[in-house]
Amino acid sequence: MAANKVNIDLQKERAKCNFNTEELTNLLDWGVKYTERRRNLEQKVLSVKGLLDDTPEEYLSHKEKYENAIRKSVLFYKTLQLLDDDMSVDERTRSNFRNLIASAVFKDNSPFMLHTSMFIPTIMGQCTDEQKAYWLKRAKNMEIIGTYAQTELGHGTFIRGLETRATYNPDTEEFVLHSPALSSYKWWPGGLAHTANYCVVMARLYIKGKSHGIQPFMVQIRDEETHMPLPGIKLGEIGAKLGFNTVNNGFLGFENHRIPRDRMLMKNAQVSKDGTFVAGSNSKLTYGTMVFVRVMIVNNMANLLAKAVTIAVRYSAIRRQSQPKPNEPEPQILDYVTQQHKLFIAIASSHAFSINAMWLWEIYHSVTTQLAGGNLENLPELHALACCLKPLSTIDATAMIEKCRLACGGHGYMLSANLAQTYGLATAAYTYEGENTVLLLQAARSLVKAWSAYVKGQALKGTMAYLAGDPTVKSWDGSVDGIIQSFKVVAIRKISSVVKILEEYEKSGLSPEDAWNKASVLLTAASEAHGRAILLSVYKSEMDKRAAALSSPLRTVLLQLVDLYVTYWALEKVGDMLLYTPITERDVVELQRRYTDLLAVIRPNAVSLVDAFDFRDEILNSTLGAYDGRAYERLMEEAMKSPLNAEPVNHTFHKYLKPFMRGKL
Amino acid sequence: MAANKVNIDLQKERAKCNFNTEELTNLLDWGVKYTERRRNLEQKVLSVKGLLDDTPEEYLSHKEKYENAIRKSVLFYKTLQLLDDDMSVDERTRSNFRNLIASAVFKDNSPFMLHTSMFIPTIMGQCTDEQKAYWLKRAKNMEIIGTYAQTELGHGTFIRGLETRATYNPDTEEFVLHSPALSSYKWWPGGLAHTANYCVVMARLYIKGKSHGIQPFMVQIRDEETHMPLPGIKLGEIGAKLGFNTVNNGFLGFENHRIPRDRMLMKNAQVSKDGTFVAGSNSKLTYGTMVFVRVMIVNNMANLLAKAVTIAVRYSAIRRQSQPKPNEPEPQILDYVTQQHKLFIAIASSHAFSINAMWLWEIYHSVTTQLAGGNLENLPELHALACCLKPLSTIDATAMIEKCRLACGGHGYMLSANLAQTYGLATAAYTYEGENTVLLLQAARSLVKAWSAYVKGQALKGTMAYLAGDPTVKSWDGSVDGIIQSFKVVAIRKISSVVKILEEYEKSGLSPEDAWNKASVLLTAASEAHGRAILLSVYKSEMDKRAAALSSPLRTVLLQLVDLYVTYWALEKVGDMLLYTPITERDVVELQRRYTDLLAVIRPNAVSLVDAFDFRDEILNSTLGAYDGRAYERLMEEAMKSPLNAEPVNHTFHKYLKPFMRGKL
Repeated sequence: MAANKVNIDLQKERAKCNFNTEELTNLLDWGVKYTERRRNLEQKVLSVKGLLDDTPEEYLSHKEKYENAIRKSVLFYKTLQLLDDDMSVDERTRSNFRNLIASAVFKDNSPFMLHTSMFIPTIMGQCTDEQKAYWLKRAKNMEIIGTYAQTELGHGTFIRGLETRATYNPDTEEFVLHSPALSSYKWWPGGLAHTANYCVVMARLYIKGKSHGIQPFMVQIRDEETHMPLPGIKLGEIGAKLGFNTVNNGFLGFENHRIPRDRMLMKNAQVSKDGTFVAGSNSKLTYGTMVFVRVMIVNNMANLLAKAVTIAVRYSAIRRQSQPKPNEPEPQILDYVTQQHKLFIAIASSHAFSINAMWLWEIYHSVTTQLAGGNLENLPELHALACCLKPLSTIDATAMIEKCRLACGGHGYMLSANLAQTYGLATAAYTYEGENTVLLLQAARSLVKAWSAYVKGQALKGTMAYLAGDPTVKSWDGSVDGIIQSFKVVAIRKISSVVKILEEYEKSGLSPEDAWNKASVLLTAASEAHGRAILLSVYKSEMDKRAAALSSPLRTVLLQLVDLYVTYWALEKVGDMLLYTPITERDVVELQRRYTDLLAVIRPNAVSLVDAFDFRDEILNSTLGAYDGRAYERLMEEAMKSPLNAEPVNHTFHKYLKPFMRGKL
Repeated sequence: MAANKVNIDLQKERAKCNFNTEELTNLLDWGVKYTERRRNLEQKVLSVKGLLDDTPEEYLSHKEKYENAIRKSVLFYKTLQLLDDDMSVDERTRSNFRNLIASAVFKDNSPFMLHTSMFIPTIMGQCTDEQKAYWLKRAKNMEIIGTYAQTELGHGTFIRGLETRATYNPDTEEFVLHSPALSSYKWWPGGLAHTANYCVVMARLYIKGKSHGIQPFMVQIRDEETHMPLPGIKLGEIGAKLGFNTVNNGFLGFENHRIPRDRMLMKNAQVSKDGTFVAGSNSKLTYGTMVFVRVMIVNNMANLLAKAVTIAVRYSAIRRQSQPKPNEPEPQILDYVTQQHKLFIAIASSHAFSINAMWLWEIYHSVTTQLAGGNLENLPELHALACCLKPLSTIDATAMIEKCRLACGGHGYMLSANLAQTYGLATAAYTYEGENTVLLLQAARSLVKAWSAYVKGQALKGTMAYLAGDPTVKSWDGSVDGIIQSFKVVAIRKISSVVKILEEYEKSGLSPEDAWNKASVLLTAASEAHGRAILLSVYKSEMDKRAAALSSPLRTVLLQLVDLYVTYWALEKVGDMLLYTPITERDVVELQRRYTDLLAVIRPNAVSLVDAFDFRDEILNSTLGAYDGRAYERLMEEAMKSPLNAEPVNHTFHKYLKPFMRGKL
């Protein structure tokens, strides 16, 4: 890109930067080598012809969007297959934390998404070795396209409620899959509608009239030759959604559809030919996968938020508005403190989520190593942790992405800004992989349990150890560490007080379940408090660890962001601070002053901080956020791509408008 | 609708209701006669053939959506013309506060929207009598379709920054309209792209090289016969947006386009043939229209929120999930206190906005009567009020609509639920008609001014009079009135403290403008505090006024909602309560307990409370929210309308998928 084409305000912003953006990019990528790999991949994939759209997707019909997504999907996955390197799974996972290439190709994701994100992992996790040998090869080569069907029209979060039945018939050695009611139709799986020909189906197993829980089955749903749905299988797409419209989410119902016995995935539970059922080992093992997915969600929130704030900060640097001082030019809107207040916290939050995701991944990694050795001890704590961090990161990221959009004024409402779609993708994570309120209540269950154990004299470990600490703050010093400590005290106090309330409710005659329900708003608040304490302290401590190896200018900037984050949250939760710490009105005013000062200190580096997220224009996909800052030109260029603009007069003028205006309709 | 077709859970909910829903509907409609008129209109319009779509709009391409909207628009407006009655303007305005018929026809609004909402009102407000006689007749008969073009690509909120020029040439007695830069292109006006043939254009007037401010001009943009854009006029559509996609928002640029002198709307300022400029009278007069539009926004937020919560409450009554107690059926999710916490505040908030809008409209009405008599005294206060209530109502309504969507889990993400679109329409109001942060800062300007006047010994009037009250709360009694008084004290304290901070900043050497900017986060907080105090106290006092005339059961329910609203906000703003009132931790616990008790008390009436909003299914447009509660059946019925489901195998299988899976791509 020729430098002279870059908006002059952005050029000036970049000249002001007082740290090395490349150093920050490397830090965010988890190391230089991953930055290199990511850029290489981006360069290779995004230069493939036909992967990037000429006509923006939003102008297509729902059907055309799907067809276009299939065209691009085969090209995209073909390209990826050719690029396959021999990294270890772990290494590849790490290296992909900031791989957003797919989002350049699919604004709204690919119909193959579930094949890689759920179908293959399920084969790896749930198959016997023999099954794995067969299915994994076919799936990895994409000889078959699969998906994963668990959720039903009437059943989501509560897995035990699933109604789809798999009844074993020892005579034929088959399972009979059946959907007993409309509410038992599978609903939501990506790719299920018209793309996948195989599907892992979660169904309730019945043998000789007895239920044996929910088990996974490999089901062929379409003919490999003709792609026609097999007999006894009803499927289709579920219709348009707020986002993910190219994912081809489908429904699936069974009418006594028969599959051979070996199609049950039998790594855990088994059914022998004669119908003897052997239960699986510890069900907590499945926690592992859930935790992994939630780590990925926290990381995904960091990426989506980084995209949104990149767009909003760059646009705020080139947009000028109002004239507070007579005879001076309109200021860049990034100079308004209210704008800085909306945006800078999003930069800090992206860092916080990113670093928390890395930290959580390391824990996940070490716990799964323990698991392999049969040690389940740390799994519940890790599970509770993921049950807090997934909701908090999705709640914060969605709110902040939306704030980024609103900070771009009217133009943020244009789809070509790519903020609305980013929100659509982020907000889905509020619900999928465990609805946020349900997860917070699960975390609360663990916290209440841990608290009771502690009260009984048992030791608390890992991320819950702090609950055994001093439940008071002796004095308010306003330091970052002091505030983080205060957040821990808030969590302790909220947990201990809700335990007391639960006891009172039960004493007053409520059943434990009713007491739990009645206290549930406070229970979610307790989980949030725990999650906030973790997010804050991990962000701080992990950044401190990395800081030593950083150049001094970068270290300074990053610690300013930590300071901003901590101060912001102390002010957001000032009610909790006032309730549980000795903070005074004067201290609050001081915090507000410090917060404003931090905004001013960060201001000169704002554009470079988002530049360091290192998103290529194809990945940002945004008229407002492109590197060159030619927002108005790009808005007009994109508008001209609207098919409505291909002709000066639409035919409806002659057919409807003119007769109407002449009173002749 | 046959009663036996209604979901059994909803039937039971309705049987539990202990107030008269019709009585509440009448109250919300502002009287029985308006309920009747509304229902009559709904019945007449919605029975017109062709107005309601067979294929859901979300399956069409962008272009098809527009063409379909034009087809429906001429039918819809034709129907309205035939139904025209001879109500007074005031009466009609009141009677239309809950008229949402258009939303049954256009999920995303009509391309004629700006014709009625901006073009006609501008003709009425800005034309001389002679001009009005000509243009109003043509516009009302819809012989011409108009729109209103103010915002430019580079200029929105800051009207003085508009760049479009209208240069008067006394020789030809013409204005020459010109767009000097891309950033001066008009951008956003609804209907401008391919629908309107006339447009009121706001442009900077130049006469003999001198600027005379921003003035309105009537500009023909398309030929009445051929609909071709006139010479010197460049227009088109701006592209896809988060919402309003059928509104046909357009752009407009001028290349030395000439219009006759009489096309300037000269009610206020005038230009005579020789180029003599006569300035308009008090510019505050235009505040009137702005206030009116903002009243309508507050009311619109009440309606949109009512729609969302109707959908979410009904769905929560039929959705069942989890099994907290063994061997008992899955509970309705409406029985979960966390769900009640998400939803009931939305019912109360809709009432609060509705009643505040009515109250504000009455004030607006009396102030405009004063204006007609030359009395401008109360205009600034009213303007400040609208500058608070528009932002707060849009902020709360959007957040709560989104909460309603999320409370419906995955299915809330389906467009057929109509929650995402409702959000899209609501969130636009965050930005249009005065961006929220900008408005809050305008309100802050008035508040700071009022405070300074008060400090100097001047009396404060109307809704600002309370600022002169006692700035302390002597004791916390937890009563509704006590909490409302506390909110007033919070506002007083925030305003007085930010004034002090402004003074300090200026003393430290900052210019007044820089001091203002530096304090702006606190200034918006002060405006919010003022707005909250008004919203709460008006909701309470206006409901009290109406309560006397209500039956006892309804009165009880409505005052429970007032109590809920006040308690909710005291807890939301507990930090402010702790800072500025003598509330203790014990009081906070007591408030939380009362809040939970209120949720339980409201629970049995929840479905009937939303039934009383009295939305026809066509207006709700929602698979999840229909009166009969057949959510799963409707989800499936809607899904089957997807054109992708018209064929079992999409042609892309043969073209792309199969070759790919066979490795032959």
